[in-house]
Amino acid sequence: MTAPLFKKIVIFGVGLIGGSFALALRKADAVGEVVGFGRSEATLQQARQLGILDRIGTDAAEEVGDADLILLATPVGQMAELMARIAPYLGAHTLVTDGGSTKSDVVAAAYANLGIRIAQFVPAHPIAGAEKSGAGAAQADLYQGKKVILTPLPENSQDAVARVRRAWELCGAVVSELTPQQHDAVFAAVSHLPHLLSFALVHDLAQRDNRDLLLSFAASGFRDFTRIAASSPEMWRDICLANREALMDELGIYMQELEKLHEALAEADADALEQTFRTARELRAGWTEQ
Amino acid sequence: MTAPLFKKIVIFGVGLIGGSFALALRKADAVGEVVGFGRSEATLQQARQLGILDRIGTDAAEEVGDADLILLATPVGQMAELMARIAPYLGAHTLVTDGGSTKSDVVAAAYANLGIRIAQFVPAHPIAGAEKSGAGAAQADLYQGKKVILTPLPENSQDAVARVRRAWELCGAVVSELTPQQHDAVFAAVSHLPHLLSFALVHDLAQRDNRDLLLSFAASGFRDFTRIAASSPEMWRDICLANREALMDELGIYMQELEKLHEALAEADADALEQTFRTARELRAGWTEQ
Repeated sequence: MTAPLFKKIVIFGVGLIGGSFALALRKADAVGEVVGFGRSEATLQQARQLGILDRIGTDAAEEVGDADLILLATPVGQMAELMARIAPYLGAHTLVTDGGSTKSDVVAAAYANLGIRIAQFVPAHPIAGAEKSGAGAAQADLYQGKKVILTPLPENSQDAVARVRRAWELCGAVVSELTPQQHDAVFAAVSHLPHLLSFALVHDLAQRDNRDLLLSFAASGFRDFTRIAASSPEMWRDICLANREALMDELGIYMQELEKLHEALAEADADALEQTFRTARELRAGWTEQ
Repeated sequence: MTAPLFKKIVIFGVGLIGGSFALALRKADAVGEVVGFGRSEATLQQARQLGILDRIGTDAAEEVGDADLILLATPVGQMAELMARIAPYLGAHTLVTDGGSTKSDVVAAAYANLGIRIAQFVPAHPIAGAEKSGAGAAQADLYQGKKVILTPLPENSQDAVARVRRAWELCGAVVSELTPQQHDAVFAAVSHLPHLLSFALVHDLAQRDNRDLLLSFAASGFRDFTRIAASSPEMWRDICLANREALMDELGIYMQELEKLHEALAEADADALEQTFRTARELRAGWTEQ
């Protein structure tokens, strides 16, 4: 029997993202011991009963020194404080990755709080599972075939990036790399803006006295367009704030697009409308989720 | 054996909407003879082979005089001319309905072209089937459980409205009534605006040099939000133009909503963002398609 790739991993935040990471690495025989930290004692107990954790940690300073790999899977807003707390105790060979869905802000927090350990942090964004949450929803195959984006730092060694990449690949993920800024620009365009626009439409209708009448005639187009408006308000508040520069850029461009369409309507410009719709249709009809 | 409710119906435009109407009334034993007109001889032949039509009409003037019910199921843009063509020959008891997805413009065309026969026209909008088209897609149960909205005119007799309502109910539809203006305002809000917004987002991305990179990271939120951007450019051009006043009103209100969100982002106003998202989420999560 060969030794596992990671003798000990420590997970901060044992929910869907953190719990599934542990279960997947276990299933791949890639981990010896899994130690977990979290703010809810009940969740930690549940995670141990579900076989996600071997042990519930009591002293982070003690646990992180001999860990091979640490996953920060808390909400992004809590990461700066957490980094500051563990930085003095990180071992020289301990790697750190995270599961945050924005990256520039997490990287800024890392530079501010990880000090000389910055080279050991390889940021990641797993694109998986927003509908469910909690340790109870964790599953070993959550990342199977899903995308994980690494946003390596100039300070990272090739070996550090390769080992973190390997961890996510052992979870079944398809790993790619972007800079933190590229990452945030891409997700502002294809994820954060659509969420904002969908929330905006439903909020707009919610203000109307005749909203019940309106909704009684809403059909499948409305259903699909607004599905993401049922997402978590807290999570999307945090994402919008964390990525607000890129999101404001995207929103500005989109508002110009709407100005043009408003003008085309005002001028009854059939060609402009049709050409816009045709260009959109061609791109969308040719796209399939990968 | 009792006589069918409609001894003879004439369908102009034997595609999904017109063909399904005929098949449904046949299945309900509510029609004697079905005569069809259309611009494509091949489609008409196919419709006869599929049992949608008993006869292909050759002279509209001759066929509409003794018809009990006429369905105008052509694109909305062709209805004015069609109304002008048949108006002089309509029988005193011939009722006319339509399948157009905008109503103010169809009603204006009717007032302009039906002359003294205006009282015999009861406008309708069946909310059914946009994905497929053509006579080959027609089916007897297309309208089963689907909404049909009548927008009766002040000139209509109660009996005329009741008979047209009965025809759609015999197709299996759930029939309700709005004024043409109410209808167009409702659909501008819950259908036409979302389509415009979805087309706009994809068109926006289509302009980018890095569109392939962007789309490679698009996931389920993008997929749902942009599904309707794969709709027919011609059809949506016509709908946007036909309902442009109401749609411009809706687009204006929506752009104000986006201005407010842009401001909230600029000021990093977490409360404003969360409250907007929360209001939207509550309405959307409580809504189910009827």
